[in-house]
Amino acid sequence: MDKKIITISRQCGSGGHTIGQDVAKRLGIPFYDKKIVESVAKRSGLSEEFIVEQGEYHSHSLLYTIATNISSGYNTFHKENMPLPDQIEIFQTELIKELAEKESCVIVGRGADYILKDRRDCLHVFIYGNIDDRKKRVISEHGIAENEAEALVSWRDKKRAQHYKYYTDRSWGMASNYNLCLDSSCLGVESCVDFILRAVQEREVEK
Amino acid sequence: MDKKIITISRQCGSGGHTIGQDVAKRLGIPFYDKKIVESVAKRSGLSEEFIVEQGEYHSHSLLYTIATNISSGYNTFHKENMPLPDQIEIFQTELIKELAEKESCVIVGRGADYILKDRRDCLHVFIYGNIDDRKKRVISEHGIAENEAEALVSWRDKKRAQHYKYYTDRSWGMASNYNLCLDSSCLGVESCVDFILRAVQEREVEK
Repeated sequence: MDKKIITISRQCGSGGHTIGQDVAKRLGIPFYDKKIVESVAKRSGLSEEFIVEQGEYHSHSLLYTIATNISSGYNTFHKENMPLPDQIEIFQTELIKELAEKESCVIVGRGADYILKDRRDCLHVFIYGNIDDRKKRVISEHGIAENEAEALVSWRDKKRAQHYKYYTDRSWGMASNYNLCLDSSCLGVESCVDFILRAVQEREVEK
Repeated sequence: MDKKIITISRQCGSGGHTIGQDVAKRLGIPFYDKKIVESVAKRSGLSEEFIVEQGEYHSHSLLYTIATNISSGYNTFHKENMPLPDQIEIFQTELIKELAEKESCVIVGRGADYILKDRRDCLHVFIYGNIDDRKKRVISEHGIAENEAEALVSWRDKKRAQHYKYYTDRSWGMASNYNLCLDSSCLGVESCVDFILRAVQEREVEK
């Protein structure tokens, strides 16, 4: 493929963010993670903190959906009438499609694998690991207290899975949603980078 | 790892069987697929055809389970009182554990990823692909009629998923059950072999 678009979905603490950064660096292409949040904040007028929270971890409860539909008179067809999390999802979707259209890049998170699922020039990757390694990583890299690490990791993954299910109707972490799934605990972070680079090459040959 | 045990789970028509054979050949280690069925047939006294069908595709319905429990007076603790599919599962489990204990090998299917999940010397792989490629493969390699291919592929995968869920309480094809998941449509069968061999090496380093 002339254009190289790599989406990386990841379990919390699996090293997927670092792996994505390294892949982008090795390929000399832009890396998008927080920049997406910044852009959505500019377009929507909402704060970055709110977008981080709602754009990857929020999932509607049935009660919330019913209440919102009643209060809006079921008129949720127009973006401005939609609940804020849905508006954020639409801003994110538009932005990620624009990025993929424009240039080669690595995009971490934000459901980019689903948003770009119909493009032939993408490689979709999922990174995961065992719970002990993931706990250690959030403790050492994000300064999370040891007794809070497991709860944080589990909570984030649960929320990501719910959010993904709500907006895509697919199961988060199901292998067939991606082209390559790598256990960073088994293979190591550096090797994961090598595997992805090799897969980018192979994808070109297969095309 | 001194011993190399590789389990390969696969979607129907994904090329996983060929990939497993090639990996075993390249590593010079035994390949187990049909041989497991033959051995279970010898141990159990049941026919190979019955074991193929029951050992990977059978899943109990709730009605079946209730009826079986009633007819056996709920006394299903002893193997000989269990329904035949459960007995086959126990024979398979014992055999696969013995194989892994004895020597390096590649095992395709039979829920070996779950049976050997607690061993540190295993690499668990899942192979999948897009529906068009899988249909083409069952038509060309297994002589399935074109108008029956999609139904066969879907039926087998559905049955494998149900069987796996029943005996493991895990979701078949969920990335985190494996160390490496490869889309053979995207990466190509030969590259999948290379990826697995590389992962076997990396696993040794990580240990």
